[in-house]
Amino acid sequence: MTSLADQAIRWHEDRLLLLDQRALPNQVRFVECTRVNEVVAAIREMVVRGAPAIGVSAAYGVVLGAREHFAACPDDWVERMEADLQALAQARPTAVNLKWAIARMREVMARTGPGDPEPGLLQAARRLHEEDVQANRALGGYGASLLEDEAIVLTHCNAGALATGGYGTALGVIRSAHAQDKIKAVYADETRPWFQGTRLTAWELLQDDIPVTVICDSAAASLMRQQQLAWVIVGADRVARNGDVANKIGTYALAVMARQHGVGFMVAAPTSSIDLQVGSGAGIEIEERSQQELTQFHEVAFAPADAGVWNPVFDITPAGLVTALVTEKGVVHAPDEEKILALVQD
Amino acid sequence: MTSLADQAIRWHEDRLLLLDQRALPNQVRFVECTRVNEVVAAIREMVVRGAPAIGVSAAYGVVLGAREHFAACPDDWVERMEADLQALAQARPTAVNLKWAIARMREVMARTGPGDPEPGLLQAARRLHEEDVQANRALGGYGASLLEDEAIVLTHCNAGALATGGYGTALGVIRSAHAQDKIKAVYADETRPWFQGTRLTAWELLQDDIPVTVICDSAAASLMRQQQLAWVIVGADRVARNGDVANKIGTYALAVMARQHGVGFMVAAPTSSIDLQVGSGAGIEIEERSQQELTQFHEVAFAPADAGVWNPVFDITPAGLVTALVTEKGVVHAPDEEKILALVQD
Repeated sequence: MTSLADQAIRWHEDRLLLLDQRALPNQVRFVECTRVNEVVAAIREMVVRGAPAIGVSAAYGVVLGAREHFAACPDDWVERMEADLQALAQARPTAVNLKWAIARMREVMARTGPGDPEPGLLQAARRLHEEDVQANRALGGYGASLLEDEAIVLTHCNAGALATGGYGTALGVIRSAHAQDKIKAVYADETRPWFQGTRLTAWELLQDDIPVTVICDSAAASLMRQQQLAWVIVGADRVARNGDVANKIGTYALAVMARQHGVGFMVAAPTSSIDLQVGSGAGIEIEERSQQELTQFHEVAFAPADAGVWNPVFDITPAGLVTALVTEKGVVHAPDEEKILALVQD
Repeated sequence: MTSLADQAIRWHEDRLLLLDQRALPNQVRFVECTRVNEVVAAIREMVVRGAPAIGVSAAYGVVLGAREHFAACPDDWVERMEADLQALAQARPTAVNLKWAIARMREVMARTGPGDPEPGLLQAARRLHEEDVQANRALGGYGASLLEDEAIVLTHCNAGALATGGYGTALGVIRSAHAQDKIKAVYADETRPWFQGTRLTAWELLQDDIPVTVICDSAAASLMRQQQLAWVIVGADRVARNGDVANKIGTYALAVMARQHGVGFMVAAPTSSIDLQVGSGAGIEIEERSQQELTQFHEVAFAPADAGVWNPVFDITPAGLVTALVTEKGVVHAPDEEKILALVQD
């Protein structure tokens, strides 16, 4: 029932296995983590990426850190964890799920009595992981219910099983709708600079026998002019209290183009991606990554040495451009602060 | 005075030398053409690209074809040219300059008396080439006059010396404005799938010591939100009678985003790019190129084998989104059919 993409994050015996997303689709290989700093590195280097997926991975990272520090110093392991928790939280700045997952694990740590903390923390991490999958299945159903039959949809980046604990957010909606025979065609933006669309989304959908057509990001506007697109469906790295959405660079332009062409714009995200601490998108830190992501592919550099590069990897879509925010608790149409507070605090 | 980019198309002794734009910026090498079918192949395979540049190259191709056919059959060379003229015209479908240049050379052929046609045709090709450079210098000046001081500009693809007979259209405007100290910063879209921005525009501007910052195409919208961008400046592969513009894929989205953010949208093109035969953008054929352009880089393939690909390499920007069409005959503000006819027939 579950595809390989659904097993991208796996606790196996005493260690965390992460499907190495840098190597897909050409190579299926796993990175093994037995220490928390290996999980920090895996998140930073994008072995695992996607907001919910890095949250789940960080939760397992906490388990590994606790084991390590408890073994070294059973009386003082909680305090010794602090630097690792900070490092995990700061491994990537934009997705809020990382902070959310660590906060959840901190609560469990605080309740942990004397003795080996690993079993309790592992149970908590597994629960958080399973809840994420369940949330995605629920929101996938809600999102699919918004689609009419024969829908042509476009997605950006990879908000699939690979980006989450499993099943996916945007791709969870597409999987659900496909199971209901509502999907006529799926287009995937290639998603520069990391090619998540070409490498990950196409691979993941084809694993489920869902046909997919890749386009370059800048062809999305032409697609909307030529095809009767029903929805653009994306995930989110963080949703602010007012409904502004931080997501992969290019999302904002898609939202503007969707509005321009009368195409629905759906953001599919679990409530763990909603950050009530942040009033609007202006308060969300946008990660900038290395120049090499833009100027090099594998070993081949293809820019002049003196060229400047600006590589922000997320952008902010104002809530006003979002047709529907789809969560595991239900759908928020035309999201704003009031509706989001009502949803989350329900 | 002239940079290497300005010598990208050169007649040397008895042959045409084309700077191989596939190899830039890592390698500066020239492809030598002594036969017309080599010119056809060079255009098709994008050794040379850019609407005016392929027009100029085709004109020299006619010279080579005439030499070949005249040597084989002095009495019948004009008729024997026909297949080659067709092949040249069809080497790429979207840019009108190719057809325009061949039509100009046909006129010269029709006026050619008995005897060796090469000297007369070469003179005509050189004149067409030189006129293109002069047109670009003129329109560069007109375009620069539209910029205020401290302008931050964004360009897409490569509409530079490399894309023309020399000096460039969009980059001609930027060169002129830079010479007048009006430019604060130049951003260049990387321009998927062929990376004309990273590989060609950055290289060409740096040859002229004009600093440039490369962004991925989908970051342009974020740039407009964060910076006080003055103008988006692009070239054109064809301008329809009503002012609709065919240009590199992604141009249309940029025009929508520019309008959304109050940024000027300038199309810089010689009148040889205006096609009065075509009433609107709907009549312009949009070239689709190979899937490999999207799924492969150098020898590395990075898409799953079963993924579909849609790779249209141009799009249509409606005239209503164009702030100014800048030609060698002057500037057309908010272009429409009436203004364009007045300009061309002036």
